[in-house]
Amino acid sequence: MKFSKPLTPCCSPLLAGKLTPEEAVQLAALFRVLNEPARLQMLSLIAAQSNQEVCACELVESLGLSQPTISHHLKVMYEAGLLEKERRGTWIYYRIVQARLAALKDVFS
Amino acid sequence: MKFSKPLTPCCSPLLAGKLTPEEAVQLAALFRVLNEPARLQMLSLIAAQSNQEVCACELVESLGLSQPTISHHLKVMYEAGLLEKERRGTWIYYRIVQARLAALKDVFS
Repeated sequence: MKFSKPLTPCCSPLLAGKLTPEEAVQLAALFRVLNEPARLQMLSLIAAQSNQEVCACELVESLGLSQPTISHHLKVMYEAGLLEKERRGTWIYYRIVQARLAALKDVFS
Repeated sequence: MKFSKPLTPCCSPLLAGKLTPEEAVQLAALFRVLNEPARLQMLSLIAAQSNQEVCACELVESLGLSQPTISHHLKVMYEAGLLEKERRGTWIYYRIVQARLAALKDVFS
């Protein structure tokens, strides 16, 4: 099994010294990804799965959103480095990038 | 010295179970506050002060933004519970609400 993930800049600590303008822009972009309630629900649903992964098909049923909407949110979170993905036949499966969430946690340390 | 802060809902853990729609909306609203680079720079500047506080006047000089813009960002972060404030004479001084940042950190645990 080989999940793929993009390399995107992440996450300068907020309280460990003055952020540069570039660091602030990168970090703000990551928070922008998280300011959609549906995306937060998707992350919590993925984390709640016994195998820690979902395909888009499972989220459509759980969240009552359309397939294109779900796919769009998954794509945005994948491109932000919050999710990794693997294609298996027809479906793409997504997992949370735990290291990315740990880095986000450290932003507030 | 008595800093005041508003009581606003905060911060359901993202990975500890399925978020309810209401929890997702509250958490997304908090991330919306953080998706402005200037606000992140302001938080890091406040944290970098030796006395951990600033007045708006000090931020105007450091960030090169107008006084009304700075005041708007401070008000938004105060109302989101990220900052507490105290009036002293002409100026209002702001501090980071450490408990709030700790709660945000726990969102990613």
